[in-house]
Amino acid sequence: MKLYSYFRSSAAYRVRIALHLKQLPFDYVPVHLLRDGGQQLKDDYRTLNPDGLVPTLIDGDMTLQQSLAIVEYLEETHPEPPLLPKQPADRAYVRASALQIACEIHPLNNLRVLKYLKHTLGVPEEAKNEWYRHWIESGFASLEARLAHDPRTGKLCFGDTPTLADICLVPQVFNAQRFSIDTQRYPTIQRIYDHAASLDAFKAAAPGAQPDAE
Amino acid sequence: MKLYSYFRSSAAYRVRIALHLKQLPFDYVPVHLLRDGGQQLKDDYRTLNPDGLVPTLIDGDMTLQQSLAIVEYLEETHPEPPLLPKQPADRAYVRASALQIACEIHPLNNLRVLKYLKHTLGVPEEAKNEWYRHWIESGFASLEARLAHDPRTGKLCFGDTPTLADICLVPQVFNAQRFSIDTQRYPTIQRIYDHAASLDAFKAAAPGAQPDAE
Repeated sequence: MKLYSYFRSSAAYRVRIALHLKQLPFDYVPVHLLRDGGQQLKDDYRTLNPDGLVPTLIDGDMTLQQSLAIVEYLEETHPEPPLLPKQPADRAYVRASALQIACEIHPLNNLRVLKYLKHTLGVPEEAKNEWYRHWIESGFASLEARLAHDPRTGKLCFGDTPTLADICLVPQVFNAQRFSIDTQRYPTIQRIYDHAASLDAFKAAAPGAQPDAE
Repeated sequence: MKLYSYFRSSAAYRVRIALHLKQLPFDYVPVHLLRDGGQQLKDDYRTLNPDGLVPTLIDGDMTLQQSLAIVEYLEETHPEPPLLPKQPADRAYVRASALQIACEIHPLNNLRVLKYLKHTLGVPEEAKNEWYRHWIESGFASLEARLAHDPRTGKLCFGDTPTLADICLVPQVFNAQRFSIDTQRYPTIQRIYDHAASLDAFKAAAPGAQPDAE
């Protein structure tokens, strides 16, 4: 397999965690999101990924986009260890936690959105940072409420073994800390993050451990 | 089953389509997103949905959130008719199309984001509408590129029977037209929308057919 990735991309980070959890070897192809006006926007990359986004996963003659679709594909083609629980209601619960991050927090704070706020709308730096904090904080507050009260929470989002929810949570917390959000205010999220970050697969997938890390 | 819904919510619309495709009866509970400062933000609703978002689906003693997690749950618990193809690579392709809408387009244009732009950032009406158009148009352009060129496209996003991709596409096109986007510029999207909208399940799920339609 071949993964087109950028070390700091949260979406690529999710897929890297899944690949390492399932111990699947892959070639790492760096796509620099800032250099040359964004290598992800070049025509040759867009033939692989029309949206001009990382990650893209190549598996044989398959070209796959969208991090959550890629993780579900890995789950279906390499079921061990499972990244989703067995029961449909539990699977829905784990997917809902993952989607709460992937649909309600991350899309508002990615690079192309922050660029639009700054360059097109002329939003000042401080208000742009406040925007960033606002979506992280409102998203983390409701995620914390869910995780703190649901009996299914363990050392990780669902019990003690990694699931799709942790795969989305860890990159989002990493990202928040990079933007100086005080994640200690969300004690369950912080506790889960600390535990997950200590696991080998999460360490191997971390931005600092990638070949294109700066 | 009981569905907490708002007639115009794209995310609730997705779940309504899935329920009707699978011919599952449900009670409709309206949650008015504008009235009383937003009924979805009230404490009693937030006990069901900590994010304060629609939809929420109640199935027996299960409370389920996030539209795509709910549709996957319905797919797992009521497999017929299937809303995802059989092969993992095809399933990934359909999920990627759905997520491209659910993660790259819709989150930027929903009510709470438009409110933040207007009230917190003070973005003028015209620039706010341009923001809305920008994310629809860039998202539809890459979705059109994918659908126009992939041999798996049929009368619908994947072949001729409805999938998760159509379930996301139809509400997004409906929403775009409401904001006066010229969707004729995306001929494959428009063609798929026209066909899907003619099917009974999609008609029954349409905003205008809901008990809380205005």
